[in-house]
Amino acid sequence: MPEPGAQLWAKDLPLDAVIHRFTVGEDPELDLQLLPWDCLGSAAHARMLAEAGLLPGSEARLLVDGLRRILNLAGQGAFHILPEQEDGHTAIEAELTRMLGETGKRIHLGRSRNDQVILALRLLMRDAALRLGLRAAQLADAFLAFAEAHRDEPMPGYTHLRRAMPSSWGQWGQAFAEGLLEELQALPEVFRRLDKCPLGAAAGFGVPLPLQRERVADLLAFAGVQRSPVDVINSRGRHELALLGWLASLAGVVEKALWDLSLYSMEEFGFVKVPDAFTTGSSIMPQKRNPDVVELARGKCSEIRGWAGLLRELATGLPSNYHRDFQLQKKPLLAGLRAGEELLEVLNRLVPVLQVDAEASRRASTPELHAAHKALRLAAQGLPFREAYRAVAEELKAGTFAPDPVEAEATHTGGTANLGLEACRAELAEARAWVDRTKARLDSARDAVWDGGLP
Amino acid sequence: MPEPGAQLWAKDLPLDAVIHRFTVGEDPELDLQLLPWDCLGSAAHARMLAEAGLLPGSEARLLVDGLRRILNLAGQGAFHILPEQEDGHTAIEAELTRMLGETGKRIHLGRSRNDQVILALRLLMRDAALRLGLRAAQLADAFLAFAEAHRDEPMPGYTHLRRAMPSSWGQWGQAFAEGLLEELQALPEVFRRLDKCPLGAAAGFGVPLPLQRERVADLLAFAGVQRSPVDVINSRGRHELALLGWLASLAGVVEKALWDLSLYSMEEFGFVKVPDAFTTGSSIMPQKRNPDVVELARGKCSEIRGWAGLLRELATGLPSNYHRDFQLQKKPLLAGLRAGEELLEVLNRLVPVLQVDAEASRRASTPELHAAHKALRLAAQGLPFREAYRAVAEELKAGTFAPDPVEAEATHTGGTANLGLEACRAELAEARAWVDRTKARLDSARDAVWDGGLP
Amino acid sequence: MPEPGAQLWAKDLPLDAVIHRFTVGEDPELDLQLLPWDCLGSAAHARMLAEAGLLPGSEARLLVDGLRRILNLAGQGAFHILPEQEDGHTAIEAELTRMLGETGKRIHLGRSRNDQVILALRLLMRDAALRLGLRAAQLADAFLAFAEAHRDEPMPGYTHLRRAMPSSWGQWGQAFAEGLLEELQALPEVFRRLDKCPLGAAAGFGVPLPLQRERVADLLAFAGVQRSPVDVINSRGRHELALLGWLASLAGVVEKALWDLSLYSMEEFGFVKVPDAFTTGSSIMPQKRNPDVVELARGKCSEIRGWAGLLRELATGLPSNYHRDFQLQKKPLLAGLRAGEELLEVLNRLVPVLQVDAEASRRASTPELHAAHKALRLAAQGLPFREAYRAVAEELKAGTFAPDPVEAEATHTGGTANLGLEACRAELAEARAWVDRTKARLDSARDAVWDGGLP
Amino acid sequence: MPEPGAQLWAKDLPLDAVIHRFTVGEDPELDLQLLPWDCLGSAAHARMLAEAGLLPGSEARLLVDGLRRILNLAGQGAFHILPEQEDGHTAIEAELTRMLGETGKRIHLGRSRNDQVILALRLLMRDAALRLGLRAAQLADAFLAFAEAHRDEPMPGYTHLRRAMPSSWGQWGQAFAEGLLEELQALPEVFRRLDKCPLGAAAGFGVPLPLQRERVADLLAFAGVQRSPVDVINSRGRHELALLGWLASLAGVVEKALWDLSLYSMEEFGFVKVPDAFTTGSSIMPQKRNPDVVELARGKCSEIRGWAGLLRELATGLPSNYHRDFQLQKKPLLAGLRAGEELLEVLNRLVPVLQVDAEASRRASTPELHAAHKALRLAAQGLPFREAYRAVAEELKAGTFAPDPVEAEATHTGGTANLGLEACRAELAEARAWVDRTKARLDSARDAVWDGGLP
Repeated sequence: MPEPGAQLWAKDLPLDAVIHRFTVGEDPELDLQLLPWDCLGSAAHARMLAEAGLLPGSEARLLVDGLRRILNLAGQGAFHILPEQEDGHTAIEAELTRMLGETGKRIHLGRSRNDQVILALRLLMRDAALRLGLRAAQLADAFLAFAEAHRDEPMPGYTHLRRAMPSSWGQWGQAFAEGLLEELQALPEVFRRLDKCPLGAAAGFGVPLPLQRERVADLLAFAGVQRSPVDVINSRGRHELALLGWLASLAGVVEKALWDLSLYSMEEFGFVKVPDAFTTGSSIMPQKRNPDVVELARGKCSEIRGWAGLLRELATGLPSNYHRDFQLQKKPLLAGLRAGEELLEVLNRLVPVLQVDAEASRRASTPELHAAHKALRLAAQGLPFREAYRAVAEELKAGTFAPDPVEAEATHTGGTANLGLEACRAELAEARAWVDRTKARLDSARDAVWDGGLP
Repeated sequence: MPEPGAQLWAKDLPLDAVIHRFTVGEDPELDLQLLPWDCLGSAAHARMLAEAGLLPGSEARLLVDGLRRILNLAGQGAFHILPEQEDGHTAIEAELTRMLGETGKRIHLGRSRNDQVILALRLLMRDAALRLGLRAAQLADAFLAFAEAHRDEPMPGYTHLRRAMPSSWGQWGQAFAEGLLEELQALPEVFRRLDKCPLGAAAGFGVPLPLQRERVADLLAFAGVQRSPVDVINSRGRHELALLGWLASLAGVVEKALWDLSLYSMEEFGFVKVPDAFTTGSSIMPQKRNPDVVELARGKCSEIRGWAGLLRELATGLPSNYHRDFQLQKKPLLAGLRAGEELLEVLNRLVPVLQVDAEASRRASTPELHAAHKALRLAAQGLPFREAYRAVAEELKAGTFAPDPVEAEATHTGGTANLGLEACRAELAEARAWVDRTKARLDSARDAVWDGGLP
Repeated sequence: MPEPGAQLWAKDLPLDAVIHRFTVGEDPELDLQLLPWDCLGSAAHARMLAEAGLLPGSEARLLVDGLRRILNLAGQGAFHILPEQEDGHTAIEAELTRMLGETGKRIHLGRSRNDQVILALRLLMRDAALRLGLRAAQLADAFLAFAEAHRDEPMPGYTHLRRAMPSSWGQWGQAFAEGLLEELQALPEVFRRLDKCPLGAAAGFGVPLPLQRERVADLLAFAGVQRSPVDVINSRGRHELALLGWLASLAGVVEKALWDLSLYSMEEFGFVKVPDAFTTGSSIMPQKRNPDVVELARGKCSEIRGWAGLLRELATGLPSNYHRDFQLQKKPLLAGLRAGEELLEVLNRLVPVLQVDAEASRRASTPELHAAHKALRLAAQGLPFREAYRAVAEELKAGTFAPDPVEAEATHTGGTANLGLEACRAELAEARAWVDRTKARLDSARDAVWDGGLP
Repeated sequence: MPEPGAQLWAKDLPLDAVIHRFTVGEDPELDLQLLPWDCLGSAAHARMLAEAGLLPGSEARLLVDGLRRILNLAGQGAFHILPEQEDGHTAIEAELTRMLGETGKRIHLGRSRNDQVILALRLLMRDAALRLGLRAAQLADAFLAFAEAHRDEPMPGYTHLRRAMPSSWGQWGQAFAEGLLEELQALPEVFRRLDKCPLGAAAGFGVPLPLQRERVADLLAFAGVQRSPVDVINSRGRHELALLGWLASLAGVVEKALWDLSLYSMEEFGFVKVPDAFTTGSSIMPQKRNPDVVELARGKCSEIRGWAGLLRELATGLPSNYHRDFQLQKKPLLAGLRAGEELLEVLNRLVPVLQVDAEASRRASTPELHAAHKALRLAAQGLPFREAYRAVAEELKAGTFAPDPVEAEATHTGGTANLGLEACRAELAEARAWVDRTKARLDSARDAVWDGGLP
């Protein structure tokens, strides 16, 4: 009978099969995600070779068109990387050679798989940064709309998970809009790190050919060339970590919102309801609705930190230049980006349909929350704060405490009576405009790589 | 034309599809690895229900046979978990119901998916621990054989990556046999943590049925029951971390061997050659053979730490009891175990064929390595060591230093002249016997679950 | 005027001062914690030298007595490691030489600072393991006593932070006693890793002197010698990680208890009160008592994981043998152990005085918690569970659900009606006896090192 | 006799002492580092209160002058935070009250310790960012000067730690100048995150007083106010992680340089010498000089990642708003910043005095390094690269390979014949100018807080 666990790991294989499987790893699968970017980068490389006189224009045209065909095949799920091809770079060259004969082989002139894969990764990361930025901007907008819709609905403000001071759902929603805004404002810088073209570094020391590195950078809408070939290789992992580090910071912002929702939707609070569509039932308890989506999303925040950590393990601790250990970095990068995408997608669905129970959260906003307010009012009238504090504390102890009849409100910026949502909205619009503008610039360059003329 | 990156993340989908995909995640794929263990655990559960009078023996028989059929199908790759089934537990129950009608549904009596999955994970982890243990024992044997074969071949001992004192390839190989032995001696304890049966905890608080928890434990050859249902759920992640933590420690042992091989096989050293079958060529440099396997294996050591770290992120920081966040733990556990398996498999191929260049490492064992030896000899003759040290230092400075004509040798335990390989071999055999014995015990219990009689 | 931040980092210093400060680092401070163990290990070394004929017995006597004097001075805070002495090893030798002249210098015969510091660390870690074990056993006892005192007080069992099934404070308290028991049962293995004597490894390759390594091991009550000198050095960090990894697992157990207390003591729950002595007030809110101790203790659990992570960064990724990078490992080891000690000390104070509000937690144990119980009862009577589930679900929907008049109870092991506290207590006593027995063995060996006769 | 280890952890103390020690932790020591910034922030707060009419100008004057006196005392090491004062905030207020009576107590009007400490941390972090930036710029300059001095000295370029292609010391040095430049260019964004004033958030929900939050921001030269009080508290840890994350990326750049130096200074390479002032001797091997400073600096790079990881553990996984767990974040932040400072300080001393052995590295630049160059030349002449590769491979195999007589050189940007050092220098100057400019702006604001007029 089949042994349990037989699926877990394959049986003993002949040496070459074992080694081949070990060196190939998950590359064929992961490289399929890189493939569109590898094709795009290769097309730009072919154009540059032609412009630099290292390749006839007619051959470059064939290569560009061939790459576009591969891209199309891949888009239809009809391009496959065979295990014996080891990686996507080899598969592309093999297919070009099948299509174009000798010409196909010329695509590798003046580059190494080292700079080729870094280029593809960087194009993918630029794209991912903008996609994530767009979704984060949408989410910030959703939190802002939530804050506006619920701006005057009171809720207790907690510290140490104890009721502390009066707050509002508006103040709650705004917190995450502002937090996400900070991440969005940090995105251009992360992007700037990625926005340098590595091609021409070859194996890390350049090549003795008159490559026009600036031209490739220009074709692919990079801000410039990453000058040092040694630094190109050394930056493998550094750039990936910068992007995942940013994503982890963003996840840290929304993790708190998710934790809050998990708590405030408990029956002990009842302040907010997660719509049924976002919950599941229990296999043994008929009465239950579980907020699985909120919990899984919170788990994704941890997972993103975990992917960044896995990447960090793989990207540090080695001398300069290329080591094959780097191959293992692709997995956590791609998995981390996907987790971020999923997290934001689900939250963009959830936040707009959260159901606040304004009555319940108002009920929980008990008088004691106003104790500090009263003490502050007394202090503003001249009593040293420490004495005002003691006076109110004694009222509380004696059971004679009552909030001021006319509610003192926080009117400074960010106070419940002056959230400053308009300023937040304006800055968000600006941040989002940068994403849109940058996306348009990259798209237009991409189209030109495929469709532009050749010498 | 297809947009590059379209493959990366799917397009916007209707809400329920998005949520479904998000909650299901990678479960169908991961649960296929759990499935044999889920079937085994379910069969033991059915037996216990019958013995406890909660299920007719005839129905239990049908369930056990049905589960075995599912196991066989899975072994042939013919059992599939459909996305709409969400997880393997549901898929198994659905298939049993398809086969057996109402009887199929009775398999879930008295348990929850919570204790069901923990049981399956624990069975898988016990198995993985023994598999890894076996491979680690093989590797320790290989290092020991290496040490014996090269016991008297000198090499420089380095400290601070500077030539320091005389050492030998025997001393080098033994270090890893001993390090692995320590891990093997630690394995029974890790196993003991896992060797408690969780079934009966249900959702974390038990069930009001006269379950015979001890009987299930016995059927599955557990050392006992994990008494507290709350602790059963709370131990989700704790046990996984214990196993991956052990594996990471083991990886830390071999990581040093791999780093050493990476260095000592450089042409600047030339002490050892990694056979060609374990190397690859360069795509642009015709003269190169790269030790990719050594580097990837070293990378796997980092990766294992990374999987443990990802698991840690997901397994900590929450209150008691079940949270859906836990679902995400399966991925790093299974991936980490697989990485460990691959690492050990490849090293078991590599170590026996390492090619020492005894001449080169002898040549590098220059006279200065013996400076401390000479100072120690002087000290043993009564000179305070600090003065002996200074005397030798002056000889070195004056260029008059020569090692003692009759080489002083380290004859204490572990010294180059007294490695103690026999003692190491004896302890290894004992450690391995535990693995074999335990494996046999589990196998025999497994067979009885499938084939034993029923009331 | 003084520049803010001037305290943060010192001003530019001459090169040698900068380098000296950099290489010395925090060693003088950290080595003070190692000093008692360094003295003890040195005394055993001196005895062995005498027994091996490498040192006259009379000189060994002087050395042992001198070391004991240093130990006493240190115990009174009167021994200082001067920055110019760099580390504790040098300071001890310097003081011995000040006391004893030439004889003092002989203490270093046949060892290196490498094996000397590893020996001191290992002695310290063995001691810390037992101290932590003792405190963990006390804490497990405290949770067990809590479980017994509150065994029949109901509380809701939560899953997904939603009320799920009936539970009890007894079940809650037991969970942590059982979790800690698992850690205690794992402790002997961690200890076994540490219980091998490294002395004689010298710089990692042994020395050409007839050291009696087994004798030192015996004097210090080690289970044996760590044979391979290379593995001795390679295990630097590995042993530290094993101990901190164990501590982090233990912290993971209590972290859940602390999170639970943080939640259940909120006014929204009111199930339990953290005594005032464990809370603090707010600087601006007169009405507040904050459970600072619970939160800081929870933070310590994170911190312990963090110290283990810092250690992991420093202990991995390098080739074999000694590198100065290792020096930085002392800090996270000592800080992590201290954090563990503080955590357990505070919890040992807190758990016995927790104030359960049985009435409040009974009130929260609403009828719906029994829905699964009713469905299970129906299923036990023959209805397929899925149908019983649906029947109860409909009652709940129709508002007609009522729990069974005679409460079905979980009578299997670990169920609320059969916690199995006695078995837990018995196993705890056994685990604790191991700690006591081992501690006595080490103490007795230590006394003999100081007081025993000499050749 | 004193028990070894007695120093490690204190003996049992009465409850209140234990709890007090536990809640205070290392705050008195850590807050001394925060104190200058706490004084500065408090002085700006007093000014704002006066301008807002919440405090008479004369009292604000007294407070500002009192704070300056405290700052001066602290600068002379004459201000102490007593354990019973718990933290620096309390100590400052106590000293002001001692000096000024009732007026001293008014400093706390309209703020909480929560926003007070966040303000102090943020001021400290802005300052640390600039200090680190300045030292990083100096180091980049040093690497650039090194690259210029050695621009034409050949060395082998390694991939997979195997000799691969011709490179130069110029190319090596430039790599780190460029890597550091990238970090410097990223610094302004990290700074921007920190450059928002948190004061006025109070406990996380604002206060009912007409605070002029924008005015405090202006006084302290912040770019603006951090609007959302909830986000102010939620950003505790997020900002710290951003700064340490940046520092860890920078450490990742130099870690590679240090690893390279560790390798290339081995006698097996001999390409470069670490000056004796940066090395130490061995306690038992008279012939050795160990590159301790290089290794400790490499260890510091790991340590910085570790501090960031410890901080991450403490800064994630919690719901919104303040929790006392946050207190533990101060330690890893301050320790991480100090490690970064030390690392950069030492490297700034080391890089300018590295001694390249141009002859040795030229000798190691063997003909085979030029194999790819020859193949590329053939390919540029029209041969498909794969065929050129094979042709050269056969020459190598036959032993007939010789590099082209006139060396083909890499003339594209970043190639050995066209490093582009001037462009690098220009960008570095720009990055450094930002640091200088920003520092001047903050200094000038700081002076005005102390010396400016008051209403």
